[in-house]
Amino acid sequence: MQVIRTVEAMRAWSLQSKRSGRRVGFVPTMGCLHEGHLSLVQLARRTADLVVVSIFVNPTQFLPGEDFEKYPRDPERDEALCRGAGVDVLFYPETGAMYAGDHSVFVDEQRLSSGLCGASRPGHFRGVLTVVAKLFNCVQPDVAVFGQKDVQQARLISRMVRDLDFPVEMVVGPIVREPDGLAMSSRNQYLAPAERQDALCLRRALDRVEDLFAGGEREVERLLAAMMEVFRAIPSARVDYAEIVDDVTLEPLQKLDRRCLVVLAVWVGKTRLLDNTLLTP
Amino acid sequence: MQVIRTVEAMRAWSLQSKRSGRRVGFVPTMGCLHEGHLSLVQLARRTADLVVVSIFVNPTQFLPGEDFEKYPRDPERDEALCRGAGVDVLFYPETGAMYAGDHSVFVDEQRLSSGLCGASRPGHFRGVLTVVAKLFNCVQPDVAVFGQKDVQQARLISRMVRDLDFPVEMVVGPIVREPDGLAMSSRNQYLAPAERQDALCLRRALDRVEDLFAGGEREVERLLAAMMEVFRAIPSARVDYAEIVDDVTLEPLQKLDRRCLVVLAVWVGKTRLLDNTLLTP
Repeated sequence: MQVIRTVEAMRAWSLQSKRSGRRVGFVPTMGCLHEGHLSLVQLARRTADLVVVSIFVNPTQFLPGEDFEKYPRDPERDEALCRGAGVDVLFYPETGAMYAGDHSVFVDEQRLSSGLCGASRPGHFRGVLTVVAKLFNCVQPDVAVFGQKDVQQARLISRMVRDLDFPVEMVVGPIVREPDGLAMSSRNQYLAPAERQDALCLRRALDRVEDLFAGGEREVERLLAAMMEVFRAIPSARVDYAEIVDDVTLEPLQKLDRRCLVVLAVWVGKTRLLDNTLLTP
Repeated sequence: MQVIRTVEAMRAWSLQSKRSGRRVGFVPTMGCLHEGHLSLVQLARRTADLVVVSIFVNPTQFLPGEDFEKYPRDPERDEALCRGAGVDVLFYPETGAMYAGDHSVFVDEQRLSSGLCGASRPGHFRGVLTVVAKLFNCVQPDVAVFGQKDVQQARLISRMVRDLDFPVEMVVGPIVREPDGLAMSSRNQYLAPAERQDALCLRRALDRVEDLFAGGEREVERLLAAMMEVFRAIPSARVDYAEIVDDVTLEPLQKLDRRCLVVLAVWVGKTRLLDNTLLTP
């Protein structure tokens, strides 16, 4: 495995790969890798000849007061995991290499980004799209793999790929869960033991909705009420949002007459957790 | 010369060119080509193995009430000119092929775009950067050539290339002028014969500043006043802006102690004309 630390070296590698006609798969991450990330690497391997993983904790997607400083970093472990997963290139740029002091160009989305995490974290997706555009231009992948856990992010990046004509195929990998059902996330590390237990309320709320839906319930109000009941039982849990939205537009649905997403963002103590599930009528 | 009308076909061509190891030069235009454009094609030919010219009158860079509808279009003449100039590919997408009905992703710049044309035409450069990002992703050029006449645009695109890491080398070609000094522009066609004569006031104002500067004048106020005197003599001329700015930051200068640009936007009748010149102390 090659570790590349500069934009120039990454670009030179990409140009050579293009010339050799080999298909490059790309998994952008913020490091602190877990099995969720590694499942995306496996997906990339399945469709590409070479796999690049980037690790970059991107400052522009954190809001002031968020956890940029304390976001978990473990470069040695990450490198070992990538080696073990058969990654060909680990792209590991420094912050200074990615953002000039007078950086002033951003990529912004104006519809899908207005609700959900976009409403709670204004500016977050502008940072995400900007850094993904930069990474796409550095790596020039043929296919890029993102996780369904951050579903709004995945939808927004697909929209960016379409609207800015990036020559990149998008693949979204399913959520990987701990044995007890908690969706894997680097931020799970923040949870104290009691909170770790409380955090199962997200999966429980989704289970509840899935059960009701399987039993024929189609009233959005009743499904949302059933989820809120689950959260009310957990004092450490504070719902940021719990919605049922169109799978494509991410707009709240009145009627469950098409594929939709149940999307959750819930604070457990000081940790904000995401989860979601797809309902297909 | 190959004429390509779809994003998919353009992309396939680009991928093949990359694999063949040939260097692609790119000149994006809005058509209605003149010698200014053709000089950019020659610059591209000098540094690249293959030259792509795009013609696309980009709706998102026109404000409501501007001249999008009446912007001059002459596809047959443009095609003949490109053939004559030895262009390899003419990329000629339709509006519907470039913008989905629910297009929602834009590229925006937040410093260099605030003054000059950015102040007079809010949203204009967002449209320009968005379409250039799209065209770069379709054509994947190694080098792109823009004209110095639209200097703020050229500086903004250079900034976008830097900030979003586009693997593209930027070249800016000098202003090409009519024999009497008027900077070439597709919009010169709008000028009635009397206005065409009045339009020379831009070049005259720049001449005046260059002469004073050569004679040692370094007071911004006096240089600007000398230009305004030229414009006051022409009743059909209305100055949108006339400024002396830093060549890099495009911010107004107090002291002429570094390379700077004298930039003009002047309405002559209903036609808005641009011109500029570089002063090097």
